[in-house]
Amino acid sequence: MTALASERAPPGDLAAQMTALGQAARAAALELATTPTAAKDRALAAAAAAIRAAAPAILQANTADLADARAAGLSGAMIDRLLLDAGRIEAMARGLEEVAALPDPVGTTLAEWTRPNGLVISRVRVPLGVIAIIFESRPNVTADAAALCLKAGNAAVLRPGSESFRSSRAILAALQAGLAVAGLPAAAIQMVPTADRSAVGILLGMSGLIDVVVPRGGRGLIERVIAESRVPVIRHLDGNCHVYVDGAADPAMALRIVHNAKLRRTGICGAAESLLVDRRATATHLAPIVRDLLDSGCEVRGDAAVQAVDPRVRAASEADWSTEYLDAVISAAVVDGVEGAITHVNRYGSHHTDAIVTEDAAAAARFLAAVDSAVVLHNASTQFTDGAEFGMGAEIGISTDKLHARGPVGTEQLTSYKYVVRGSGQLRP
Amino acid sequence: MTALASERAPPGDLAAQMTALGQAARAAALELATTPTAAKDRALAAAAAAIRAAAPAILQANTADLADARAAGLSGAMIDRLLLDAGRIEAMARGLEEVAALPDPVGTTLAEWTRPNGLVISRVRVPLGVIAIIFESRPNVTADAAALCLKAGNAAVLRPGSESFRSSRAILAALQAGLAVAGLPAAAIQMVPTADRSAVGILLGMSGLIDVVVPRGGRGLIERVIAESRVPVIRHLDGNCHVYVDGAADPAMALRIVHNAKLRRTGICGAAESLLVDRRATATHLAPIVRDLLDSGCEVRGDAAVQAVDPRVRAASEADWSTEYLDAVISAAVVDGVEGAITHVNRYGSHHTDAIVTEDAAAAARFLAAVDSAVVLHNASTQFTDGAEFGMGAEIGISTDKLHARGPVGTEQLTSYKYVVRGSGQLRP
Repeated sequence: MTALASERAPPGDLAAQMTALGQAARAAALELATTPTAAKDRALAAAAAAIRAAAPAILQANTADLADARAAGLSGAMIDRLLLDAGRIEAMARGLEEVAALPDPVGTTLAEWTRPNGLVISRVRVPLGVIAIIFESRPNVTADAAALCLKAGNAAVLRPGSESFRSSRAILAALQAGLAVAGLPAAAIQMVPTADRSAVGILLGMSGLIDVVVPRGGRGLIERVIAESRVPVIRHLDGNCHVYVDGAADPAMALRIVHNAKLRRTGICGAAESLLVDRRATATHLAPIVRDLLDSGCEVRGDAAVQAVDPRVRAASEADWSTEYLDAVISAAVVDGVEGAITHVNRYGSHHTDAIVTEDAAAAARFLAAVDSAVVLHNASTQFTDGAEFGMGAEIGISTDKLHARGPVGTEQLTSYKYVVRGSGQLRP
Repeated sequence: MTALASERAPPGDLAAQMTALGQAARAAALELATTPTAAKDRALAAAAAAIRAAAPAILQANTADLADARAAGLSGAMIDRLLLDAGRIEAMARGLEEVAALPDPVGTTLAEWTRPNGLVISRVRVPLGVIAIIFESRPNVTADAAALCLKAGNAAVLRPGSESFRSSRAILAALQAGLAVAGLPAAAIQMVPTADRSAVGILLGMSGLIDVVVPRGGRGLIERVIAESRVPVIRHLDGNCHVYVDGAADPAMALRIVHNAKLRRTGICGAAESLLVDRRATATHLAPIVRDLLDSGCEVRGDAAVQAVDPRVRAASEADWSTEYLDAVISAAVVDGVEGAITHVNRYGSHHTDAIVTEDAAAAARFLAAVDSAVVLHNASTQFTDGAEFGMGAEIGISTDKLHARGPVGTEQLTSYKYVVRGSGQLRP
C-alpha cells in the first residue's frame, strides 16, 4: 500500500497534489483492470466490517460536520441529508456487501465472431478507468459510489460536498482499510485533498488522467460540471416525468398509477410531474384522477379543460409544462390522443421517464416507440425507474444522456469494452 | 418536404439560422426514430442514383473548389484529398448502396428480463438523435457520414471543410433528392449555411439540439472541438500503435507482421509507430526485423540496444516514444519481456491498437488483458483496425474514447438505447 498523493504532496500546491492524485488513480486503475473478482469482493466485505468497526469515529466526524452546518444556518432538509446515525452507518456497510454480491461485469464477452481470414474478434467488457464523482451533502455516497466503481474495476476520485468533508474522510479511511486487507492499492479510492471549490475546477480539467466525471446533486452542480469539464460527463438532469392516460385506459388502474407515480415519494427523479389525459376521457378518467390528487393534498395546475373539472385546480403557466416540482404539485393537460401526448412529452419532457396507461396495444406500442426518453412504461408507475427495481443492483444515478449510459447507471454502465483479436499471423492485404 | 432552415432564415443572422437548423434536425430525428428500415434504405438507394446522375454538377462544383485551393497554395496532398473524379463519385454512390445493405441496428432488443412483480423490462436500441460531423477536405465524407447517420436513424448536421464547401453542397443536393424519393424530411441531412468558422463555434454550443459531435480530421481540429464543445464528443485521437515481439515469437511471422503493420500503408491510424522487442530476442528477432525495415526504406529510431543492431539506426529521443509518424519511420526499443512491453505501451501509447507476436499463450493472454487499448491483437497486423476488416461495414472513424464507442464507429455505435417496461398496473410499494 503506497502513501496517498494527498499525504505526500506539500500543502499549498493544490494543482501538483491533484496531478499526483490523478496519476496514482491511473496507476491503480491499470492494476484494478486485471484484479480478480474475489479480491475486489474481499475488499468490499472488509470495508463493510471496517465501517462497522469505525462507527464511533465516523459519528464523531459527522458531529463536527453537523455543528458547522448548524452554525452556518443550513436548512433542516440539508441537515437531515448530512446526518449519520447507527442505522445509516449499518445501511452503508450492508450496501457494500450488496455490491460485493453483484456479478462482476468485467471480462464478459459481449460478442465474438470469426472473419473469413480466420481472425477471431471478441468485444470484451473492461473498466472505464478513473471515475471522478462530485456530490453533495449525503456522506453515504462516499461508500456507495466508491463500491460501484471498485466492483466494475475502476479507480474512484471522490469530491464530497464541503459540508460533509469530515464525515466522508472518516468513511474513506474505512474503505481504504478494506482495500489494504485485499492487497489492493489505496489509490483505488481517493478523495480530493481539500473541500475548496478550486479542487473541482482542477479535477474537471484533468482529461488524460480522469476518464469520466459523474456529478450527483442539484441542477446547479450538474450544469457547472457540464459547462466547465474537459473530461466526459455522465449527466443526470431533471426528471420531468409524464403519465399519459389514454381514452382506452382502465380508469381504476389509471387512477392508481397516477397516484403512485405522483405521490408515493415526491422528491425522487422518477416521480411524475405532469399528467396528460386523452380528450375523449375527460369525464371518465380525468375527473376522478384530479379529485383523487386534490383530495390527497396534491396541488394541480391545469389547462382550461382540467380547470373545468374542479374549482380547486389552479391555472398552469407555460413554464409549468417544463417544471420538475419534486413536491406534491402536478401539471395537467388534456391532449388529443396518443399523438398529442407524444408531441407534448417530446416537447416539454426531460427524456427521463414517461408512462402510458391504456388497454389499446397499438396506442401503447406507438407511445413506447415514439417517446424519446430513457425509460418508457406501459401500465406501470414512473417511480419504477431505479437500479434496484430494474434488478440491476445499486446505481450511481439515472442518466438522461444518450451517449454511453442511459437510464439507471449501475456497475455495467461503469464499464467500457475493448476488441481482442486473435490471429495466426494474418497480414492485411 | 419542408424548406431547409438554411434556405428560410435571413442571411446575416447566423445564430438564428443555426438554431432553426438544429430545431429542424431535432424534428427530423424524432421522425427518423420510428422510420421503417425499408424507407431509409430506399432513400440511400435513391441518393446513390442521384449522385450518379448529378456527377457533372458535382464535378463542376469540385472544379471551382480546386481552383480556389490552388490559388490559395494548398499542398499537393490537400489537393489530392479534395479532388473528385468519375471513379471517386462512383465509389461514393456504391458506398451509399453498401450502407443500405447493412443490417438496421435500430429496434434490436439488447436484453430482456422479467421482474418478480411481473414487469417485463427490455433494453432496445434507438438512434442517438442529431449527430454533427465536422470534417476536413475530403468531400466524399459528406455522403459516407450522412449515410451511416441515416441508416442508424439519426439526423446529420454536416460541417465540411471550407475548401470543399461547394463540392459538399452539390453532394448534399443529391442526398436530399434521395430523402425526397423516400418521403423522408429534408432536414434529416443538413449542412451548416456557411463555411465561416463561426458556424462551428455555434454548433459546439448547441447542446439540447445536437446530441453528439464527431470531429473527423487532424489533431488540431479534434482538440479544438474537445476544448470548445458543450455537446458530447466522440474522439478520434492519435494511433500511436505498437507491435511487441516476444521472445517466444515465431521469428518469420514476427518479421512479416511488423513489416505489414508499419509499411502496408503508413498514413492510416492503425499503422504501427513503435516496435518493442523482448530483450532475450535481440539477436534472433530484433536484428532481422530492423534490417528488413531499413532495407525497405523505413527509418528506424532506436534505443541503445536497437542502435547496436545496425549502424543505420538513429537514436530515438524521449519524444519518439509518443510520436505518431504516419510515415515510413518507426521507433524501436528493447523491453524486459511482456511486463516491460505492457508498461511501455500503457505509458507511451495512445490506447488505439497494439499487438503482441508470440507462441506463448500465457504471455499473449497477459498482454491482451493488461494493455489498455481499444484494439489488442495476438499474432496479427495492427492495420486490421478498421470497420470493414472487423466485419462491421463502413465506419465514421476509430474512437480512442472509452465512453460510449471504442474502436471502429459504425452504425451500431451511432445508436443509444431506451428501456421499454411493460406492466399490468404495477405500483411501486
